[in-house]
Amino acid sequence: MTAVTTVAGLDALAPTDRSAEGRERARSDRSGWSPDGLPDAVVRPDSVDQVQQVVRWAAAHRVPLVPRGAGTGLTGGAAAAPGQVVLDLSGLDAIESLDPGARTAVVQPGVILADLDRAAAAHGLRYVPDPGSVAIASIGGTIATNAGGLRCARHGGTREAVAGLDVVLADGSLLRTGTSGARSVTGYDLTSLFVGSEGTLGVVVRATVRLQPLPVATATVTALFPDVATAAHAVATVLAAGPVPPTLELLDHATLAAVDPALADRGGAFLLVQTEGAPALAEATALAGLLRGTALEVDVTDDPVRAERLLATRRDALPAVQRHGRVLIEDVSVPPAALAEAITGIEAIADRTGVRVFTFAHAGAGVIHPLVLTDDGEITPRVRETVDAIVALALRLGGTLTGEHGIGALKRHWLPDELDPVARTTLHRIKAALDPAGVLNPGKAI
Amino acid sequence: MTAVTTVAGLDALAPTDRSAEGRERARSDRSGWSPDGLPDAVVRPDSVDQVQQVVRWAAAHRVPLVPRGAGTGLTGGAAAAPGQVVLDLSGLDAIESLDPGARTAVVQPGVILADLDRAAAAHGLRYVPDPGSVAIASIGGTIATNAGGLRCARHGGTREAVAGLDVVLADGSLLRTGTSGARSVTGYDLTSLFVGSEGTLGVVVRATVRLQPLPVATATVTALFPDVATAAHAVATVLAAGPVPPTLELLDHATLAAVDPALADRGGAFLLVQTEGAPALAEATALAGLLRGTALEVDVTDDPVRAERLLATRRDALPAVQRHGRVLIEDVSVPPAALAEAITGIEAIADRTGVRVFTFAHAGAGVIHPLVLTDDGEITPRVRETVDAIVALALRLGGTLTGEHGIGALKRHWLPDELDPVARTTLHRIKAALDPAGVLNPGKAI
Repeated sequence: MTAVTTVAGLDALAPTDRSAEGRERARSDRSGWSPDGLPDAVVRPDSVDQVQQVVRWAAAHRVPLVPRGAGTGLTGGAAAAPGQVVLDLSGLDAIESLDPGARTAVVQPGVILADLDRAAAAHGLRYVPDPGSVAIASIGGTIATNAGGLRCARHGGTREAVAGLDVVLADGSLLRTGTSGARSVTGYDLTSLFVGSEGTLGVVVRATVRLQPLPVATATVTALFPDVATAAHAVATVLAAGPVPPTLELLDHATLAAVDPALADRGGAFLLVQTEGAPALAEATALAGLLRGTALEVDVTDDPVRAERLLATRRDALPAVQRHGRVLIEDVSVPPAALAEAITGIEAIADRTGVRVFTFAHAGAGVIHPLVLTDDGEITPRVRETVDAIVALALRLGGTLTGEHGIGALKRHWLPDELDPVARTTLHRIKAALDPAGVLNPGKAI
Repeated sequence: MTAVTTVAGLDALAPTDRSAEGRERARSDRSGWSPDGLPDAVVRPDSVDQVQQVVRWAAAHRVPLVPRGAGTGLTGGAAAAPGQVVLDLSGLDAIESLDPGARTAVVQPGVILADLDRAAAAHGLRYVPDPGSVAIASIGGTIATNAGGLRCARHGGTREAVAGLDVVLADGSLLRTGTSGARSVTGYDLTSLFVGSEGTLGVVVRATVRLQPLPVATATVTALFPDVATAAHAVATVLAAGPVPPTLELLDHATLAAVDPALADRGGAFLLVQTEGAPALAEATALAGLLRGTALEVDVTDDPVRAERLLATRRDALPAVQRHGRVLIEDVSVPPAALAEAITGIEAIADRTGVRVFTFAHAGAGVIHPLVLTDDGEITPRVRETVDAIVALALRLGGTLTGEHGIGALKRHWLPDELDPVARTTLHRIKAALDPAGVLNPGKAI
């Protein structure tokens, strides 16, 4: 435990909450996982200057800091333990500027994605990265994890949307990376290094993000298949036919039953495809033609209200499944061409272990979310065997153990399965170079 | 100078050229700049294993290595000095595999971009990054510089096309970054760190690159304007009208006169816009309508042969200008919305200093190439004043001193104008963490 006098020193620098309730609220994320005990304090700076002072204080006193955004992470990346202080950035939630001509916005890390997207929409623009958690996730957290989402196969993820960052380094200095929107190859790509670094290399306190024009039209195809294997093969057909559609989402039967039992009675897997731009309807109609070969039902609409309602089905997937019990939320990723093999392989694993797995996927990007039902929160040997086999399968197919949620605390034990000693050593060299005292989010990400 | 015995040790590891002609050929790049004197040797490995052995040898003997691809760089990034050994990777030039289903290729660094693109085209695919030097540049060099090109505003540059790398680190170990095509957020983004690091952090010996389907159709708009300011404002109109077109190239009058005197007689600036996909012709026709407001002549074609001929005009720009004398090749970059201000500002600078400047631009990306004519190769105070003012203007507009060529040796003196001490220290910390002895391309990039 940090000494009381030290915590008092923190109090003078920024608003600090030492109540049991406050610390309880900030000890975990949406994975539900946290270490035993509570962090020592929750500090919630009002300004970049306060963040710098807090980091300097932590460096001087060797107190580990756990940066925290909206707490919607799924890997325990923001989980905090006794002896640690939570650095809560949710108070820095201003959209500082939005330049419709330059198509950029300067935002603080606590801004909720949906709020940024709404502000952009007022100017005919959008913030492209679109994770399932768009309504509740903060941009700082999605920068920390390099979040993907429903549109990332065509438009890229968070990294591609970030032009530059202001980052408080482990010594309290303020680093500016990237540009205000210009393409730049000056120096190493520090922006890309900090995006996805899960708060272990620096604390993001401001971001310049790129906005894109809203599409002039969208169209949506939904298709119901007899089973998930057939749906996954239909995805392969779509991907082989041309450029990847902006949105291509797959739900297996278990997930479909959780979100829409009536639909699940009529078929075994659901596919949602979205196209954009002037030819959206023509493209959607052509894709629908491809899907009709194997689908039970196919529907095409260019009504944006109806499309949003259909998308809501997909966005509901995680909370709907979570109503069935505590799940391990995986996000393995495979090359999109290997999606069908991965999906059918996950089904076979679940059949073998007898553990219930709900699977949905950003199919165009090859990012798969198998939600593995625990035994009332307990990770039994069968549950462990199931997730281990799923990760091994993804790696065998040329994939990765995390496609968009990050490593956090919960996936670190798998790192040696994906990264060899040279890669792991390289990550730790970079960490040591930028945070030699190991103050920033220790025990996470690498 | 390295002792002869040391160079002899090198001979045993990989084919080594110590002839004056061989060292003369490998001492510079297309910037024409090199330090006085010749490097000690040119080593040209035949295999990844040989690269590792050479790097281990260099580390043990503290001999600086200068990695070299096709030698088409424009910033002296591959320039080598006495006491240094050139690590020539042009012999590693195999396309090891190309998977049309996965839309990826595994290539060695010496592969010429146009050869990769041709191999992809046989499967209806393309390698998207398209620098002006596509016919002569190697993929290793374009990875080292994170090269942009004619399509980068819409489709991204080299970084976005690279899924993973094999890199020989400064201690000779082999690092694998990224994936074989899957989206991944495992660990820090080492791929993005090495892309653009100009051979200072490691030696890229293999890359997995993403390929994209060839567009089903393209259309090309060319427009002639009375002057470059009018053309630059037309670019702003195009950018404000919707998504950035895949190609949007601007040539000023001096450049136009160098590549096509007859065309230059009819107008003062030239714009080339290309659109892609099923609605390409409709989109091009709409853009042509926008341009007709201020253009002298506007032409639209969907004939790919004619489009390629028109594009050749643009690709000819650099060699055509170079026939007028030795030029300093700049590649400042600004937010695309600031392009008109930058272009007219560069014109004003040239008027003021009386130095001839040829300007063309990847206008959609905001990347501008002012070619500043030297006095027979001599950089007079007026020439120096001109380039300094151009860089200062770009930085003032929120831009950067290099949009796609890299820092190399020639732009390092401007780094403090763009990067503050915190940023420069951060770059050097990363360099020191990965190459503590400073063996890899010292004196470049940072």
